[in-house]
Amino acid sequence: MRGGEKYSHKLMKKIRCEIPDVPGALGKLAAAIGDRKAILGDITRVEVTPAHVVRDVIVYFDNPKHVQDTVAALKKLKGYKILAVEDEILRIHKGGKVAVQPLVRVESLSDLRIVYTPGVAQVCNYIVEHPQEARTYTAVGNSVCIATNGSAVLGLGDIGVAAAMPVMEGKSLILHKMADVSCVPLLIDSSDADRIVDILEGIAKTFSVIMIEDVKAPLCFEVEEKLQKRVSIPVFHDDQHGTATVILAALIRALKMTGNKKQEVRIVINGAGAAAMAAAKMLIAYGFRHSILCDSAGPIYSGRTNGMNPYKEEIARCTNSGKVKGTLADAMKGADVFIGLSLPGLVTSGMVRSMKKKPIVFPMANPVPEIWPYEALAAGAAISLDGRTINNALAFPGIIRGTLDAGAPLITYKMKFAAAETLAALAGKNEIVPDFMDPAVHRAVASAVRAAAEKSMVRK
Amino acid sequence: MRGGEKYSHKLMKKIRCEIPDVPGALGKLAAAIGDRKAILGDITRVEVTPAHVVRDVIVYFDNPKHVQDTVAALKKLKGYKILAVEDEILRIHKGGKVAVQPLVRVESLSDLRIVYTPGVAQVCNYIVEHPQEARTYTAVGNSVCIATNGSAVLGLGDIGVAAAMPVMEGKSLILHKMADVSCVPLLIDSSDADRIVDILEGIAKTFSVIMIEDVKAPLCFEVEEKLQKRVSIPVFHDDQHGTATVILAALIRALKMTGNKKQEVRIVINGAGAAAMAAAKMLIAYGFRHSILCDSAGPIYSGRTNGMNPYKEEIARCTNSGKVKGTLADAMKGADVFIGLSLPGLVTSGMVRSMKKKPIVFPMANPVPEIWPYEALAAGAAISLDGRTINNALAFPGIIRGTLDAGAPLITYKMKFAAAETLAALAGKNEIVPDFMDPAVHRAVASAVRAAAEKSMVRK
Repeated sequence: MRGGEKYSHKLMKKIRCEIPDVPGALGKLAAAIGDRKAILGDITRVEVTPAHVVRDVIVYFDNPKHVQDTVAALKKLKGYKILAVEDEILRIHKGGKVAVQPLVRVESLSDLRIVYTPGVAQVCNYIVEHPQEARTYTAVGNSVCIATNGSAVLGLGDIGVAAAMPVMEGKSLILHKMADVSCVPLLIDSSDADRIVDILEGIAKTFSVIMIEDVKAPLCFEVEEKLQKRVSIPVFHDDQHGTATVILAALIRALKMTGNKKQEVRIVINGAGAAAMAAAKMLIAYGFRHSILCDSAGPIYSGRTNGMNPYKEEIARCTNSGKVKGTLADAMKGADVFIGLSLPGLVTSGMVRSMKKKPIVFPMANPVPEIWPYEALAAGAAISLDGRTINNALAFPGIIRGTLDAGAPLITYKMKFAAAETLAALAGKNEIVPDFMDPAVHRAVASAVRAAAEKSMVRK
Repeated sequence: MRGGEKYSHKLMKKIRCEIPDVPGALGKLAAAIGDRKAILGDITRVEVTPAHVVRDVIVYFDNPKHVQDTVAALKKLKGYKILAVEDEILRIHKGGKVAVQPLVRVESLSDLRIVYTPGVAQVCNYIVEHPQEARTYTAVGNSVCIATNGSAVLGLGDIGVAAAMPVMEGKSLILHKMADVSCVPLLIDSSDADRIVDILEGIAKTFSVIMIEDVKAPLCFEVEEKLQKRVSIPVFHDDQHGTATVILAALIRALKMTGNKKQEVRIVINGAGAAAMAAAKMLIAYGFRHSILCDSAGPIYSGRTNGMNPYKEEIARCTNSGKVKGTLADAMKGADVFIGLSLPGLVTSGMVRSMKKKPIVFPMANPVPEIWPYEALAAGAAISLDGRTINNALAFPGIIRGTLDAGAPLITYKMKFAAAETLAALAGKNEIVPDFMDPAVHRAVASAVRAAAEKSMVRK
């Protein structure tokens, strides 16, 4: 079983170096890199001369100082030459990762007169007369907006809209690659829920789905709720619902392997951000009966007074019926499942050992989990995977594709359950989730989501 | 000299018909179509059998009834079979004409971990530390928003945002094709200037230029003015400035051919919409001294009381110094140049004959001009071209490209003059404007605009 990787990389560099063309020369370089506790990635040959080989070596570092020190050490190796240290990731992202591009050819004035004036007027007139076909004859039917205010980007926090753009583009790219969706990243420079909602309501007719992305809790809840009431297209906060869907999928699959029942397992979720709240609600909606949500003040329960907000109050009413108090460690004692959506390193091996025998441990803090999966497995977990495996990217392409195909005005629990069950069913023999890179996975999710949407609503 | 086409097509259909494979058979079909006053477009052979040929015939009609009657007449032709009547334009527009697509390949999990988590965090962090490089490492630097509220779409009027989308996509497509710009169409469902400005200000950080498109006057002036004060990127209303730039280009070129001087010519501009106002202002800024702007109430002059607004007052202060009153016909008497940006058929041959000898007549009402250019030429015009030749699409791709390349925070008159002069200089020997389909034209405009921007401002 995959246990996730041990290391989370922080800074990737491509080091181009000329090394002697003798047996053992590459090994010496690799050893020198390892001595500095930097991690080797791909190694490719760039050039071979009679005496030397030029290689590009991808190396992962902790921080810029670590790069400096390591490169300085490599420079001392006799007969080796460091030709360049490049930021390969920056290079790949340069100029952006997505762009609006034509779907039709324009090679002549005749073509132009069809796609632009005067021919285009025929399409405008047709839409005026047949407003219900606007999505069919424009890009709107396949267009999704991914909107952020940059307030909760990955594990990096409130870094602002400009720095959030690379992530939005990454999701746009994935949506196109896996689900052929046209996804427009939109940076909204505001931390006011009403202003964000006003803006998105004003431009909603451009799109068939609005995704909210990397907006911090509880702002994201307010934006989603208010916006959904004011637009006739689905509003989807992937950090909540995409993540919750994949957690549900992984849990369905893991319980099938361990033989436990959803009505019986005791689940502890750590974190009170968007993903944790959504996961708790979705698991309850799916039929899990015993769960406790913990935040930095410990288990949340009805009547707790410190650090509460209306969203936590709502969760408190349907979780922790036994009113467990104290700390996360207290909550985890005897639990069957741990789901972490909080911060690095909060869970110890001892805490895993205090759970029921052979527990399921999903420590998903980004980029460093609450406990490394290999540590959880060593402490007795039957199954442990982190957020790099249980990743929302498994769910959102198919969910969005299926929603667009159905022309659905909402993304309901039934649609998300269909996605989760499909993912669970497609996982390989010894796997908890299926292969993200397999297009068939996303097609299957889309098809299940579409069917669920069409079953429960009159199609538009 | 090109005089533009005589007909503006309204409804294009593709008629697939099986006709006898004998000489003269196609001629008979074409004659039957002509008898019904429908216009033939391209004809292509689809299939040839021993006795028949199947051809696709593009035909332009006035309206659906015209289609019906013509097809009924064709069906009566002996030995001919009408196999299908299809809306070729709708077919081409189906599914939209643009989409957000990847610029980088994602073929493996390794690729994914660079373009998305965890690698993308390295780019986010870099932008946090180097905010001035946000445009370099995201799509923002090459991204333009084209925003409309659908209130003045082509010559169709206030048809709403949904029906405006095909035009926005058309412009997006042209911007990509001619200038490699990523252009996001945005439908803003409001007719309130402050709301439109609020929305665009809120999302401005996603883009490097905001284009306002097909927003009616005077709302468009208010939106442009207010928005430009609140964002640090250029706001460009193409209907105003793109059109004005191409009119200036055509006028520079036409005066070079007729030998008149800009300080001396008397210009009458008909229309008080966005394009007319902008053209009047730009011509004045460029050094034309004698112009009169007319609206439906006749010449605009300082002190006129009916049908005025603050924008017309402003124009009145710097035009029509002789306070010509009365009608458009009165204004045109003895004028050297007529520029129409108003409504079909407002100019008669007699009005052209009342102008100075060999006048320049640019009747640009869309889709049917104030007078057909061939009629103006017959009435003595030295040069007459309509909006299909003097088209803003000649200017905006290069203007936007040059602006992006310069990282300019504004699009100034100097930049627009540079574009106009470049277009005038590139026109062929007997032509007034250069060939829109020639990519070199747009590159030259971009380069001139960039140079003008960099000359007059500190580059970002």
